[in-house]
Amino acid sequence: MTKVFVVDQLIRFSHCDPAGIVYYPEFFNLQHAVMEDWFREGVGRALPEMIRNDRIGTPTVNIQCDFTKPLMIGDTLHWEVRVLRVGRASVQLAYTGMKNGAEHLKIVQTIAFMHLDKQIAVPIPEDLRPRIEAYLTG
Amino acid sequence: MTKVFVVDQLIRFSHCDPAGIVYYPEFFNLQHAVMEDWFREGVGRALPEMIRNDRIGTPTVNIQCDFTKPLMIGDTLHWEVRVLRVGRASVQLAYTGMKNGAEHLKIVQTIAFMHLDKQIAVPIPEDLRPRIEAYLTG
Amino acid sequence: MTKVFVVDQLIRFSHCDPAGIVYYPEFFNLQHAVMEDWFREGVGRALPEMIRNDRIGTPTVNIQCDFTKPLMIGDTLHWEVRVLRVGRASVQLAYTGMKNGAEHLKIVQTIAFMHLDKQIAVPIPEDLRPRIEAYLTG
Amino acid sequence: MTKVFVVDQLIRFSHCDPAGIVYYPEFFNLQHAVMEDWFREGVGRALPEMIRNDRIGTPTVNIQCDFTKPLMIGDTLHWEVRVLRVGRASVQLAYTGMKNGAEHLKIVQTIAFMHLDKQIAVPIPEDLRPRIEAYLTG
Repeated sequence: MTKVFVVDQLIRFSHCDPAGIVYYPEFFNLQHAVMEDWFREGVGRALPEMIRNDRIGTPTVNIQCDFTKPLMIGDTLHWEVRVLRVGRASVQLAYTGMKNGAEHLKIVQTIAFMHLDKQIAVPIPEDLRPRIEAYLTG
Repeated sequence: MTKVFVVDQLIRFSHCDPAGIVYYPEFFNLQHAVMEDWFREGVGRALPEMIRNDRIGTPTVNIQCDFTKPLMIGDTLHWEVRVLRVGRASVQLAYTGMKNGAEHLKIVQTIAFMHLDKQIAVPIPEDLRPRIEAYLTG
Repeated sequence: MTKVFVVDQLIRFSHCDPAGIVYYPEFFNLQHAVMEDWFREGVGRALPEMIRNDRIGTPTVNIQCDFTKPLMIGDTLHWEVRVLRVGRASVQLAYTGMKNGAEHLKIVQTIAFMHLDKQIAVPIPEDLRPRIEAYLTG
Repeated sequence: MTKVFVVDQLIRFSHCDPAGIVYYPEFFNLQHAVMEDWFREGVGRALPEMIRNDRIGTPTVNIQCDFTKPLMIGDTLHWEVRVLRVGRASVQLAYTGMKNGAEHLKIVQTIAFMHLDKQIAVPIPEDLRPRIEAYLTG
């Protein structure tokens, strides 16, 4: 059974541009917060801990986004997070951003696991791998 | 002869995260500033004018980014902007972000021309089309 | 009995600078979100509604901040909001930002009520005045 | 003769909110960039160098801002920087933000010099002191 991680975000003043809609760089800021929430609550390991204790970071290697419909101030953005692929040292994630059941944007992101001091890719920590794979889509 | 629009940006405190490197959502903020500069100086029509006078905006339909190498505070990020495709009401742009001659990131963005009040796609303004096509890569 | 509005925020990657602590302009971004929450939940009128329905905005006239202790990624920032002064068309708010019971920062902000189309100050809406005054400190 | 450090900034999309004017937390982001420019070009020591080589940072202890008139997308914001006070380990700076000769905002900021590893205040580096005092207002 595939798990899907869900979280809601309120679209605020700070996210919107003079056209009254979300300024797209802010979507990546919002999406990064979703990734932080997924690691902390979905995978069970907070990124700040992983950085401090294990010196492991998760830099983004590639990210792509389709913007289908705009979002406005006061909207509630509902995110669904799924895992598309789990490699030795990388994970590909899909984030669907929805409002009232309709898809407004879709982000696909590839992150790598990297040792922050050695600056080299490291395998996904063994205790995290099954918890990440639980979100793998069929 | 294809034109290439170039602009340099200084990587500042505000762009960097606790790992000391640019936080990737900031790259889209920096890239949006490059697009604004390209419209104003490369194409010869500033976006704020286009919005106020013509009520035309240029929402992003799709954007993708490969992050090859990180950038740090104090670095100078050298951008090269080229046009990959010009449609009836859309333009696809390629932004290469370099440091000391090496590619650090590459962004491909598709923007649409949209009437802000009617919220419908509109053809690229006729006076802008040749000035945009001047940046079309071979 | 004075009401105090409280809300917690998680300090995230996006808030922190290369020194690993919150970059101070982000504190104003976080504080603005607190003001939005206070209007929506504490006063009972969401700012986006007030803007759309009444064309009233709440621009900041003056803001000052003492930064006593830093905050780091992963910290929980606990805010307490009180009202210091209620004028005809303005409100002065105090925001105390705390961690584990200790004060880390204090912001005092004066906002005005302004008609967005006429660009003139307007009296605080009568239905909001008592709900704002409920937060007035003794 | 007092020196005044001046720099111009273009108000961009990313700085503006749905009301079409600069979102005030962005003014602190813009002001921080001015401080970085002042250190690099006015004082002659770039902050990133000072952080890397000397392990000295300049955290903000107190900041206050009066917002007199709004600024909009496409505006050019002209900054003037002066020094109000030089202490043993701190500097108080005044930033006036103008458009077409009229004052739109005024920021007064107190920064401390701090050793980033020891987390203690340190005296202003001796070679910087006279270069900072050159901006002291009469």
